[in-house]
Amino acid sequence: MSQDASLTSLGDLGEFGLIEHIRTQFELQQASSVLGIGDDAALLDFNEKQCLLSTDMLVEGVHFDLSYTPLTHLGYKAAVVNISDIVAMGGTPTQLLLSLAVSNRFSKEAVDALIAGFRQACSFYEVDLVGGDTTSSNRGLVLSVTAIGEVEQGKHISRSGAQDNDLLVVTGDLGGAFLGLQVLEREKAVFLENPNAQPQLDDYQYVVGRLLKPEARKDAIEALADLGITPTAMIDISDGLSSEALHLANASKKGVRLYEDKLPIADETFKACEEFRLNAPTVALNGGEDYELLFSIPLSDHAKFEGHPFFRVVGHVTPDEKDRCFVTNQGQELPLKAQGWNALSNNPED
Amino acid sequence: MSQDASLTSLGDLGEFGLIEHIRTQFELQQASSVLGIGDDAALLDFNEKQCLLSTDMLVEGVHFDLSYTPLTHLGYKAAVVNISDIVAMGGTPTQLLLSLAVSNRFSKEAVDALIAGFRQACSFYEVDLVGGDTTSSNRGLVLSVTAIGEVEQGKHISRSGAQDNDLLVVTGDLGGAFLGLQVLEREKAVFLENPNAQPQLDDYQYVVGRLLKPEARKDAIEALADLGITPTAMIDISDGLSSEALHLANASKKGVRLYEDKLPIADETFKACEEFRLNAPTVALNGGEDYELLFSIPLSDHAKFEGHPFFRVVGHVTPDEKDRCFVTNQGQELPLKAQGWNALSNNPED
Repeated sequence: MSQDASLTSLGDLGEFGLIEHIRTQFELQQASSVLGIGDDAALLDFNEKQCLLSTDMLVEGVHFDLSYTPLTHLGYKAAVVNISDIVAMGGTPTQLLLSLAVSNRFSKEAVDALIAGFRQACSFYEVDLVGGDTTSSNRGLVLSVTAIGEVEQGKHISRSGAQDNDLLVVTGDLGGAFLGLQVLEREKAVFLENPNAQPQLDDYQYVVGRLLKPEARKDAIEALADLGITPTAMIDISDGLSSEALHLANASKKGVRLYEDKLPIADETFKACEEFRLNAPTVALNGGEDYELLFSIPLSDHAKFEGHPFFRVVGHVTPDEKDRCFVTNQGQELPLKAQGWNALSNNPED
Repeated sequence: MSQDASLTSLGDLGEFGLIEHIRTQFELQQASSVLGIGDDAALLDFNEKQCLLSTDMLVEGVHFDLSYTPLTHLGYKAAVVNISDIVAMGGTPTQLLLSLAVSNRFSKEAVDALIAGFRQACSFYEVDLVGGDTTSSNRGLVLSVTAIGEVEQGKHISRSGAQDNDLLVVTGDLGGAFLGLQVLEREKAVFLENPNAQPQLDDYQYVVGRLLKPEARKDAIEALADLGITPTAMIDISDGLSSEALHLANASKKGVRLYEDKLPIADETFKACEEFRLNAPTVALNGGEDYELLFSIPLSDHAKFEGHPFFRVVGHVTPDEKDRCFVTNQGQELPLKAQGWNALSNNPED
């Protein structure tokens, strides 16, 4: 990218120059942010509250493909996937740390695009960038983000609190991000075959948007509070509903049953599934990266959210730890499997 | 590495298998660690105290060379360099997050060696591993570590508090790690020339140890507390004394003067400098990775630590922000330059 003489090379800017360039773009807004970027460590004060911490690493060629992922979207998503983990604990996201390993093929302008997306997420979710690291990479882009949040003493929601007969509820709809990936991979293949081809994405804006610009469901947590509902257990759906339901079941030492006819699937996802000859419920069950929430609530809370557009019951919790199944429309009971993305297989030798 | 059939491939273990394998090796010991690995986020409780956060990314081929860096040492060092940042704020390190991007050429046994070193540091510094991420890498090893610490309200030591005429003090000795790197690079070159050559490291144990197994000076912070000394400003020396002294001067809006005849240099470092025809004071001034501390104290505190083996006065703070110089044994005043490692230049295109 930096072949273009009008772009600024990162080498000219230097590590400290780049840090300073980033620092000036972020202002501290959270009461808990005492000291941000610029010292050996950030200083935070959570007062009476407890502190939540989560971290994710995003590697070029594994988690994203820059041939169809705009850097602004990547920056936004890197913040969101970490914020989502704080939200999934019932916490309020407050700060982020951002570490970047970039090779010299990135210009300052490319890093600026990435940072612009990250900043947009910070602004939307009202979180402060308080630290990080910048370094060179001898190949590819690696991002590591740590999210920090706060939660009142004893008010966090772990994966382990699901109770017998609790309802399993998900926010939004599922499978869209997976279809977005199929569409972008297809367009990439077409482009590689014929570099003059223009991408055909108009019919797929919803599913492509689900992949490239996911949101953390902070709004759903706020809606639950307004409705007077406290989930007994919660997890965010990054690896697919099936995989996350099993995590929740394992942590809670319970069984879970999910129902095909209850899976929330958007019309756009259905249409794209037909075109790609994919089974929509299978995609909704196993496709990852939607960043919706899965949580359990007492049966008695059902009436409180009936008809609410955010929430859909997809199954329930059972007492038998071995009872983990997916019930099809034909009444067949299939064993639930964690088909979620496995980060450590199918990776060719360097 | 995983060609050896007796080794376990990471693909067989899977991401969740690897996380579980790591989790079982770490126990929570800190009172502030409420929930560790196993949920969407770790949960910490600092009670009345404030929370410190710092993060560093280590990239293979940029920060370390696996041809001469044992994985156990790398794991130890990855923890230490982050713990050092918490110590440099006057805080007590309490938790770590560890993210790993590894390619399939790593076996489970290789990751175990890395984790063993990391665990040794956790044990020595009494910090808990409370979270992280594991993912595949399509090339090379990347580690991202976040360190968390605690400090009493208002007791942190930033870079910005240096006062006129304060003494500048460093712990330990400087330049050793840089010489260790020269020795290892030379042995690597010999090995590449003649793969049957045995590395000659016996005479260089001290300097090689300084590079491969640095320590965070938590002991120095404790000694200062015992001596009743509170630094006005502090920073850890990761990029070289010159660079760090300038950071401290910039943040404090002061001048700094360092003296050649006061630089603490170990005999082993001197000897290695002679052999490599390097000027020892220049190396002590600009060589990075020693992870010693640089701090400023009021002149009146000098008597409190005179003769203490940990501490050495290397210069002083001046009121004039433009006055940043290195005074040679001949009385020459040279401008201080940040010659520290610049992470973003000299990096060839992918």
